[in-house]
Amino acid sequence: MLVKKIEQTPATAMGVQGAKGVTMRLMVGRSDGAPNFAMRQFEVEPGGHTPHHQHNYEHEVLILDGRGEVTGGVTGQEVRAIGAGDVVFMPANELHQFRNTGDGPLRFMCMVPTRFDCGADGSQPTPGS
Amino acid sequence: MLVKKIEQTPATAMGVQGAKGVTMRLMVGRSDGAPNFAMRQFEVEPGGHTPHHQHNYEHEVLILDGRGEVTGGVTGQEVRAIGAGDVVFMPANELHQFRNTGDGPLRFMCMVPTRFDCGADGSQPTPGS
Repeated sequence: MLVKKIEQTPATAMGVQGAKGVTMRLMVGRSDGAPNFAMRQFEVEPGGHTPHHQHNYEHEVLILDGRGEVTGGVTGQEVRAIGAGDVVFMPANELHQFRNTGDGPLRFMCMVPTRFDCGADGSQPTPGS
Repeated sequence: MLVKKIEQTPATAMGVQGAKGVTMRLMVGRSDGAPNFAMRQFEVEPGGHTPHHQHNYEHEVLILDGRGEVTGGVTGQEVRAIGAGDVVFMPANELHQFRNTGDGPLRFMCMVPTRFDCGADGSQPTPGS
């Protein structure tokens, strides 16, 4: 087994276009031998946001601290307030974004599958997994 | 997208043999359309524990509150202290148990794949997913 502390795990800037003030800690991923899904911790600074984007794999998210909004839904226009103890399931292909609307950091865990576009030959490693 | 609050999600007793004082909230699972993995929140009362067992699928765990110990490792004898902010990756087939050694509830998120024993015909829905 592997036991790690979030605060002792290195954070890297989320360099994806459209991200602002976002860092990621890869807590459990492919390099740890995770066969099916990866656990990442994100921290978004006040005023920051993740990219407003979509992709053909899902997110499962737990908000740890802070206040924010998530945009998603089948229209890509649904906006919901989020805070500590909220869980978000973002299905594949929904246009989505997480924004920090508070005065402190917005911290959340975001799980993704380790592979997507799965088929006989088309399996791809999920970015950030 | 789906947005849920942990505290508003019904808890059910973990009826598995060897569990003591454990309740589970299924936050995101197969019934929500989760295609690859499920997110569950567990609460273990002081003195309680999950079953001392093994299975051929992995856990990815985030400790939210409380103090405890996790047993695992390739020998099944490794014991590590756990508290808020700790992440545990428990690979498939390791004998493992989570115990509450504190005075308050031990709360953690535990993610599992939604299917295991995957093969042409052998895929099974993971219990509690």
